[in-house]
Amino acid sequence: MVSKMSSELEVLEERKRIVEEQEERLKIKMGKIGHKIAVISGKGGVGKSAVTVNLAVAFAVNGYRVGILDADIHGPSVPKMLGLSGRRLEVGPPGIFPVVGPFKIRVVSMDFLLPDENAPIIWRGPLKMAALRQLLSDIVWGELDLMLIDLPPGTGDEPLSIAQLLPEMDGVIIVTIPSEVSQIVVKKAVNFARTLGLPIIGVIENMSGFICPNCGAKIDIFQSGGGEKIAKEMEIPFLGKIPIDQRICEDSDRGKPFIIEHRDSPASKALMEIVQKIERFLNQKENKGGEK
Amino acid sequence: MVSKMSSELEVLEERKRIVEEQEERLKIKMGKIGHKIAVISGKGGVGKSAVTVNLAVAFAVNGYRVGILDADIHGPSVPKMLGLSGRRLEVGPPGIFPVVGPFKIRVVSMDFLLPDENAPIIWRGPLKMAALRQLLSDIVWGELDLMLIDLPPGTGDEPLSIAQLLPEMDGVIIVTIPSEVSQIVVKKAVNFARTLGLPIIGVIENMSGFICPNCGAKIDIFQSGGGEKIAKEMEIPFLGKIPIDQRICEDSDRGKPFIIEHRDSPASKALMEIVQKIERFLNQKENKGGEK
Repeated sequence: MVSKMSSELEVLEERKRIVEEQEERLKIKMGKIGHKIAVISGKGGVGKSAVTVNLAVAFAVNGYRVGILDADIHGPSVPKMLGLSGRRLEVGPPGIFPVVGPFKIRVVSMDFLLPDENAPIIWRGPLKMAALRQLLSDIVWGELDLMLIDLPPGTGDEPLSIAQLLPEMDGVIIVTIPSEVSQIVVKKAVNFARTLGLPIIGVIENMSGFICPNCGAKIDIFQSGGGEKIAKEMEIPFLGKIPIDQRICEDSDRGKPFIIEHRDSPASKALMEIVQKIERFLNQKENKGGEK
Repeated sequence: MVSKMSSELEVLEERKRIVEEQEERLKIKMGKIGHKIAVISGKGGVGKSAVTVNLAVAFAVNGYRVGILDADIHGPSVPKMLGLSGRRLEVGPPGIFPVVGPFKIRVVSMDFLLPDENAPIIWRGPLKMAALRQLLSDIVWGELDLMLIDLPPGTGDEPLSIAQLLPEMDGVIIVTIPSEVSQIVVKKAVNFARTLGLPIIGVIENMSGFICPNCGAKIDIFQSGGGEKIAKEMEIPFLGKIPIDQRICEDSDRGKPFIIEHRDSPASKALMEIVQKIERFLNQKENKGGEK
């Protein structure tokens, strides 16, 4: 009985040591990354991944060394959108390497680890937390100026885990669609970020109105203006509206970044303006940091 | 030491007894419900809740006694869509009563239990499981012909919990949008249902094409035909395509069922045809059951 208990204790001690080592490695690796921004949404299907991918490409084009952590364990879609489906993480002596995508964007996604892209991940909370800690601590991201973290929608396990693992995050961007039903969940996302003490960089209103490419009529498929309204109400910055463009979906399906393929479209211009606002936020933060 | 261990044992025994009693009550209550169908999606934002609400209304209009369990703990939107925001569950001697909505639809949603609709629920997996078990076992649903369960998107904790709590479910309906990026997650949802041994009633392709109300041009905002294609590929029934109609979002925001407000629209007609197919599935199942 005593020997059983002591061997159980040994196992627990061993586990504790592994987690501590992981957290140490995590700290060292994350220290090489200039800025970390999480992209969140209260509800799914608001185009969060498409926005993340296009923001990443825009930053990369502007000269940033960019990484994307696709932390959406249940529905990783970043690889598909960057034309990286079926790719695998490579293992070398110092650790596991991200897949390098267009514009040298370094991408890590659960999708690269799955045996088959159609396999569902039926995982419970604690297992997900362990997977995320390992992803963050064991991957050789190298030097990056910016890491965008595409979080799964909602205010559940993964966003919570990421927030706990990365207390020094620069902030979060909240993506929403304009409808009122979505506004309730945006408020939840704002409160979630505030509860965890994460700065809110701002709200992006995606799928904001649609211009018929045939006749030019404006139809508000998911209403319009709701994101701006909620930002005012909650006293957080509004980053901009991205109109619906059917080519965003087409390009995402083809694995081509929309912001490059259709750079003169109103949606691309809106995205570029949003990038400028995010850059201003990061620069202000750096200047403040320097004053300390 | 011994007394501490025995008191811990007592606590565990007590917990076990509570769970067993809950499961007993659950069995009795669920026995009064003719059919149980879960509405799932691999990814969020495909209009799963709007489809659930409109199917529920259509069944109620057809004479069914209908209940909706809004099991989307992180983003409950069913109450808003049925004009029931701010309502509360009432407690009487036999238990907790559902909120009665339009067409006598009995609705239970986490939203009715939250102190404030903007509060996020930062809950871990095991807590969610306990909440769901309690919702299902302690609520006086009464006699129902059909219960629709609006599950949160993905293949995570809640769908898993519900499937474990309701092994005698009639089947699941999978809602998707037509884009290819969505198809990957539909496959995951199909595999999820198969892994858990749940019959698949069929796939609904929502937001399938858009007809400009001004000029009549058809624009495939989220592509078109992807749901039908995936149903063929995975050898599961295809229930139908629901076109995009900006009034679905408007009506959802106003808390009015679209299928009643715009019953002659192509989207409403598509919904009614889907209801007929689901009825056929349920009738066939009943007939098979009778032959046994």
